[in-house]
Amino acid sequence: MYPSFRAIVPAGGAGTRLWPVSRRSNPKFLHDFTGSGQSLLQATVDRLAPIADEVILVTGAVHAGLVQDQVPECAVLTEPSPKDSMPAIALGAAVLTRRYPREDLVIGSFAADHVIADVPAFHAAITTGIALARTDEVVTIGITPTHPATGFGYISTGEDLTPGGRRVVEFIEKPDTRTAGEFVAAGHLWNAGMYLARARVLLDHLVEFHPDLAAGIDEIAAAWDSPVRQEVLGRVWPSLTAISIDHAISEPLAPRGRVAVVPADLGWNDVGDWAAIGQILGGDGEVPTVIGATGRVLTVDAPGAVVVPGERQIVVVGLAGAVVVDTPGALLVTTTEHAQQVKDAVEGLRARGQEDLL
Amino acid sequence: MYPSFRAIVPAGGAGTRLWPVSRRSNPKFLHDFTGSGQSLLQATVDRLAPIADEVILVTGAVHAGLVQDQVPECAVLTEPSPKDSMPAIALGAAVLTRRYPREDLVIGSFAADHVIADVPAFHAAITTGIALARTDEVVTIGITPTHPATGFGYISTGEDLTPGGRRVVEFIEKPDTRTAGEFVAAGHLWNAGMYLARARVLLDHLVEFHPDLAAGIDEIAAAWDSPVRQEVLGRVWPSLTAISIDHAISEPLAPRGRVAVVPADLGWNDVGDWAAIGQILGGDGEVPTVIGATGRVLTVDAPGAVVVPGERQIVVVGLAGAVVVDTPGALLVTTTEHAQQVKDAVEGLRARGQEDLL
Repeated sequence: MYPSFRAIVPAGGAGTRLWPVSRRSNPKFLHDFTGSGQSLLQATVDRLAPIADEVILVTGAVHAGLVQDQVPECAVLTEPSPKDSMPAIALGAAVLTRRYPREDLVIGSFAADHVIADVPAFHAAITTGIALARTDEVVTIGITPTHPATGFGYISTGEDLTPGGRRVVEFIEKPDTRTAGEFVAAGHLWNAGMYLARARVLLDHLVEFHPDLAAGIDEIAAAWDSPVRQEVLGRVWPSLTAISIDHAISEPLAPRGRVAVVPADLGWNDVGDWAAIGQILGGDGEVPTVIGATGRVLTVDAPGAVVVPGERQIVVVGLAGAVVVDTPGALLVTTTEHAQQVKDAVEGLRARGQEDLL
Repeated sequence: MYPSFRAIVPAGGAGTRLWPVSRRSNPKFLHDFTGSGQSLLQATVDRLAPIADEVILVTGAVHAGLVQDQVPECAVLTEPSPKDSMPAIALGAAVLTRRYPREDLVIGSFAADHVIADVPAFHAAITTGIALARTDEVVTIGITPTHPATGFGYISTGEDLTPGGRRVVEFIEKPDTRTAGEFVAAGHLWNAGMYLARARVLLDHLVEFHPDLAAGIDEIAAAWDSPVRQEVLGRVWPSLTAISIDHAISEPLAPRGRVAVVPADLGWNDVGDWAAIGQILGGDGEVPTVIGATGRVLTVDAPGAVVVPGERQIVVVGLAGAVVVDTPGALLVTTTEHAQQVKDAVEGLRARGQEDLL
């Protein structure tokens, strides 16, 4: 059997903390936040293309058109409604298994809206991960922490494995600041939500942990490349459990010693908020980080500012770490320190009924 | 002779610290910064109208049309170029003296761009000031300090006068913070630049202190209501010394014991910057000060914010004392603490050649 590797990219999530650029109708992964000329989704696909036989996307019906426009080379599986990552990944794995029955298929799942600076290191980690997956492990890529982050889950690790990587002892929930420092000191890794496994191994675990979900996915996958896809999808999909792959498989499987991790230092960033944008682009001095036309931005005494100009001149005075995002319908003003709270503000708009701005 | 009182309002100055609402072509005094429905200029004229026989304006040629549109009831004297306050006030005094030769004319000069909350107290102070002026004093209105401001000059005072007010001992330049505290403790007053005097007394002092300026103004005033106004104005005005009334008359006259002051608590504010706007409108709590449509502003954790919305939704997150001013061509983001530095930013735009934004 041909040993193939196919990548599944669930493209979902609103990216509320990157409002007002990221909107429900035009979410985070469709945008170029780094000034690279590519959206986060396009960069994700391009990063995977050299090492994968195929990159397949799973996205919501409302975004399928925009997604297909951005990556016309990829197959797109359309979900009728969001069900978190496990149904999306399982659907991808099950459809690919049926499409390529003669392959020894390893699948990998990758977020559509993260940034990875060191692509060669990423490829090396995936290559090791694929080799581990072929020993029937469920494999995750564990990011070497650069600071005691409180926004990520951590992975504690055990013995070294062959042909690389380490045993996952436990997935640990997001810590507080003090605990995060202890985790970093202990050599724990960040859980970036990247998983690799033989498609068959992953689906077998799903049958064990969530038999109803597995059965539903199997029924949908059997109908996918047939005239009854929409009928089956419309009937079965709404009944599926919404759950993440972490909760569905990797966390319950780890205590059995069946999950491996490949530690990797990738220059990874989850692009979680506007402060992350500033970090990615390296803006930390007197010169502001400008995403767009720099001539439209003037800062005075505003070190570390992050500015997304629109059509107008923006002047920022005396505001260290200012975040100013100028879009036609809405303007955000905050600081890198308060970037997480943007989510609360968007909730505030929702509460006021300003749905058109979400 | 009929004892008249006529007010002169020099309407000049760019109000750079209130950029981007205040522009060279549409300066501070033409705008409604307080949400009163009137521009600062209109409010100044309305405040004076009940106690003055006439309010006359002196403004630059470039603004004369906009000024006349806003206050069609007032005569407007047009200066060919800015020469600071003394030539403007002297021109007003000289033209009025010639127009009303049978009056015992007291003139008062008042900035076009200040706010006074307590109008009855203002009227009472002016009434006292007029009575003092009729004893041939040059009279200023001295504002009771509300805090140790470093942005204003101070007035030290001596004995009580009849029919009211006190002797000015000295006009003192803007102090540093420590000295300002001593001045407030000593009972010194703020110099708000409001002056009253018999027109004849004022012009006689000008003859003594600045004979060339006095002669030039006299020549222009003689030609004003005649066919040769433009010819004389075009020839003489450019040669006049640019100087403030403080430097030209009140400061050199005070040591002679010929200047009086009427202390007054008026709720006066010079509307110097965006922080002053916040103070005037009383925004200091969780609710932001919004000048415009409040529905277009959402703040989260931004006490004391001052927001001037434009056509778009503005969201401010985690920024105490934020100042956000949204105009079609330019957006300003700063804090009340740094509001004075807006001037530097406008200089920065000038240095970059962005003249259209000034």
